Amino acid sequence: MRLYQMADSGNCYKVRLAAAQLNQPLELIAVDILNGESRTDDFLGKNPNGRVPTLELDDGTCLPESNATLFYLAEETPLLSSDRLARAQTLQWMFFEQYSHEPYIAVARFWKSIQPGGEEKKKGMFPEWHARGYQALDVMEKHLGTNEFFAGNAYSIADIALYAYTHVAHEGGFSLDAYPQIQGWVARVASQSRHISMTQK
Amino acid sequence: MRLYQMADSGNCYKVRLAAAQLNQPLELIAVDILNGESRTDDFLGKNPNGRVPTLELDDGTCLPESNATLFYLAEETPLLSSDRLARAQTLQWMFFEQYSHEPYIAVARFWKSIQPGGEEKKKGMFPEWHARGYQALDVMEKHLGTNEFFAGNAYSIADIALYAYTHVAHEGGFSLDAYPQIQGWVARVASQSRHISMTQK
Repeated sequence: MRLYQMADSGNCYKVRLAAAQLNQPLELIAVDILNGESRTDDFLGKNPNGRVPTLELDDGTCLPESNATLFYLAEETPLLSSDRLARAQTLQWMFFEQYSHEPYIAVARFWKSIQPGGEEKKKGMFPEWHARGYQALDVMEKHLGTNEFFAGNAYSIADIALYAYTHVAHEGGFSLDAYPQIQGWVARVASQSRHISMTQK
Repeated sequence: MRLYQMADSGNCYKVRLAAAQLNQPLELIAVDILNGESRTDDFLGKNPNGRVPTLELDDGTCLPESNATLFYLAEETPLLSSDRLARAQTLQWMFFEQYSHEPYIAVARFWKSIQPGGEEKKKGMFPEWHARGYQALDVMEKHLGTNEFFAGNAYSIADIALYAYTHVAHEGGFSLDAYPQIQGWVARVASQSRHISMTQK
């Protein structure tokens, strides 16, 4: 399998992390989204929505959307429960991540720490991103007050999906100081076997 | 099962439509989000993220996130393939819907047609919502040029997820005139057996 990806992207890191833990080799192909490489005709042929990560299967089928890719890799593995409710709860937190978390926490990080000059350019947006991002962190903190992981009482792709941008939230100007449950969970995720950091290949 | 929901919400309609087609009875509980009913302590106890729909199972477990709820209802039914790749592709389009479609097409509709005075209040946002919403429609149009449905060569919860706000996109100021493939698909979805409209109970 090939992963079209950008090293700094949390969405791409999710897939690299799950693949490492599942012992699934991935050929990594760098796509420099800052220089328009996700908008070329060639790349749009792989993903018409022009986003990374995009996973290319051995038969050439391309699967975009980080969380759909996680689900594909994790089916019938310990990273995804076989229980119907636990599977739905895993997806519940993955949809929460993409709708209520990533658009604020990842986007603030992108403009503050990835895109050169981005913080100045998007200055007016940070108050809303921070307000909404902290709302998402509040929801996570509450859940983790009575749960060790997000779904099915076990480490799963829901944790991987939420960990990707939560553990680098400071790069978007967020502080986790008021979130002791999240801090504990971040440490638990990082201590799972075969964990790799965002900067490891 | 009980569905906490708002009649005008496309996210809630998704769940009503899938349940109708699966012959799954639902007790509907109206939550008036325009009057703060999704932010009460009682409702936040059911969904700490304060959003509808929230599905309450018979044992009291609450499942938020419309697309996770669709997946829960559809497992092992004709609305969700049992093939691993087709399941992932179903989720691919459902994550596309929540990240690249709903935040523009549903949000424009909410402020134009649901929230009184919303269009004037959010006037400055409509150009961006329309630009991004049309990008999502472009991606759908392209896919439907060579596919009858979104995933697994069959009508599925991916179609239900995307239909909910696409078929009322005009209420957000969008026109589907330049999207013949989408128009054909909207008609195919509406002709599925046991289909209910957004306004049917």
